[in-house]
Amino acid sequence: MHSLNDLQAMLERYAQKHPFPEEPPMLYAPCTYMLSLGGKRLRPLLALMACELFTDEVEAALPAAWAVELFHNFTLIHDDIMDAAPLRRGKPTVHTRWNTDTGILSGDVMLIFAYQHLLKARNDHTAAELVRIFNRVAVEVCEGQQRDMDFEQRDEVQLSEYLYMIEQKTAVLLGGALEMGACCAGASLTDRTHLYHFGRIAGTAFQIQDDWLDTYGDPVRVGKQVGGDILQNKKTFLVLKALELANEADRATLRQWLRTPADTPGKVKAVRAIFDRYDVSLQATTAKAQLQQEAFKHLDAVKTPLSRQTLLRQTVAQLLDRDH
Amino acid sequence: MHSLNDLQAMLERYAQKHPFPEEPPMLYAPCTYMLSLGGKRLRPLLALMACELFTDEVEAALPAAWAVELFHNFTLIHDDIMDAAPLRRGKPTVHTRWNTDTGILSGDVMLIFAYQHLLKARNDHTAAELVRIFNRVAVEVCEGQQRDMDFEQRDEVQLSEYLYMIEQKTAVLLGGALEMGACCAGASLTDRTHLYHFGRIAGTAFQIQDDWLDTYGDPVRVGKQVGGDILQNKKTFLVLKALELANEADRATLRQWLRTPADTPGKVKAVRAIFDRYDVSLQATTAKAQLQQEAFKHLDAVKTPLSRQTLLRQTVAQLLDRDH
Repeated sequence: MHSLNDLQAMLERYAQKHPFPEEPPMLYAPCTYMLSLGGKRLRPLLALMACELFTDEVEAALPAAWAVELFHNFTLIHDDIMDAAPLRRGKPTVHTRWNTDTGILSGDVMLIFAYQHLLKARNDHTAAELVRIFNRVAVEVCEGQQRDMDFEQRDEVQLSEYLYMIEQKTAVLLGGALEMGACCAGASLTDRTHLYHFGRIAGTAFQIQDDWLDTYGDPVRVGKQVGGDILQNKKTFLVLKALELANEADRATLRQWLRTPADTPGKVKAVRAIFDRYDVSLQATTAKAQLQQEAFKHLDAVKTPLSRQTLLRQTVAQLLDRDH
Repeated sequence: MHSLNDLQAMLERYAQKHPFPEEPPMLYAPCTYMLSLGGKRLRPLLALMACELFTDEVEAALPAAWAVELFHNFTLIHDDIMDAAPLRRGKPTVHTRWNTDTGILSGDVMLIFAYQHLLKARNDHTAAELVRIFNRVAVEVCEGQQRDMDFEQRDEVQLSEYLYMIEQKTAVLLGGALEMGACCAGASLTDRTHLYHFGRIAGTAFQIQDDWLDTYGDPVRVGKQVGGDILQNKKTFLVLKALELANEADRATLRQWLRTPADTPGKVKAVRAIFDRYDVSLQATTAKAQLQQEAFKHLDAVKTPLSRQTLLRQTVAQLLDRDH
């Protein structure tokens, strides 16, 4: 069995063996730049771990794993344009360093290259299966991004709509990465499907935890300003749950705060006071824990020796246990 | 054998049987809108004609044909953003009717749906082959678009660079459409390759004709203002050939005109005078005719009865014979 470090090293070697072309530089330099910004490479690592549940030949999943990473980076380049985000991982975003046109076209070609790697599967049947899974997930990611943008324009968003949005926008890709890794190992459809749901549900739990950390996390450990979501009037799990539970007066007050500018004095404190009145923090951690449990039931159902599951179990559990 | 009308009707039926989803509307309505703007559907028709060179079951190529049309429309949506084009076929472009973010995301999902249709091939081997051809061409189209944008920023562009750019940006997709249609019919690699080159070279000839028509065409028949390319300082075959052939004085004069605003009085007449001095019109029609001949040699080499080739021959010959 490989360690996380082993898998990371394999992935970087694969990436270095498959660089983008050099010409035309204005098309490909932004792709190389985006990938050089690093990140945890969580999605491709999940694909490799899923493969290793079934076979020692984890190399079989490298192209699909890298395809998922390219897809993820393609979405980041285009999302950064839509969000008008100046920075990503502390560095200028592609459209900031170059321009919007470059961001659009480099993102496009990165998506096409993702499919290129899927075609490196050991046979055409597996390649077609991988494209099928990839496509199903990719469509959902686009739909999730659209819903997220739609929500910004709307006054009323239900919590259930929000949960579906985060599932589509970010969680299904984790599920898809696992499913594709298992597919590369020749796993059964049942096992592949369980792994998909494991990733999808754990991914949703992860997003709820992310919302929770932004308001209740330790700023030193979280590594960013606490309350940022509140300041920016983001419709998070916490806000939508509070709107669901609050009495009419508190709901009206909360809605009023959600219309104020980011720098309104006393905003974080006042909104947190409403959250606390309705135990929204506990609601979030409970929802997260329930999803976590549900997710791991799917992993339990996968027919593979427990010894092969250690790394995947530990990695996902650690991701979901940042309760500080 | 089917007529052009038959094939067009089959294609529209296929499109109507495979509409985009309804939700979320802001993602998919722009896709449906873009496709409703019409156009000749030249690329998917070429795919169907190529299939019919080898088999009566032209239906086998419908999904791949439609994938090519979706890809083409995806590039149009994104190119219109990059070109800041307000209109397409007389109607508002997607980013004008909605906004840039919508144009980016709807284009993205349309590209993903193109792959979805490729997966509908009769077996996984054909599907993987189709994705391989599609990807090879799609990467070239992105590179061509980048080179086109690069050229706008550059003072010096060689004619050979220009020819390579138009080949990548528009001609290879015609070749790819033919190759994919033949692939769906189970044609040999040799025949597929000849068809690819037929489309690629004919497509380049078509672009040169397009440049020629903009300056020398009959405005009534061409359906647009003659001299538009000259007014907008476009680096066309005519301009680059003139710069190649002209003496130093004329080259300097031409370069000066290329730096003037679109509405400079006497511009079209003055530039045409330089073109005429170096027989640039004849140079263009000769280059086109040579490419046309070269292209049809590839079609001649395809091993299929001449009777099956009539529609494809006629269609491409007609496209290349707009000498007015």
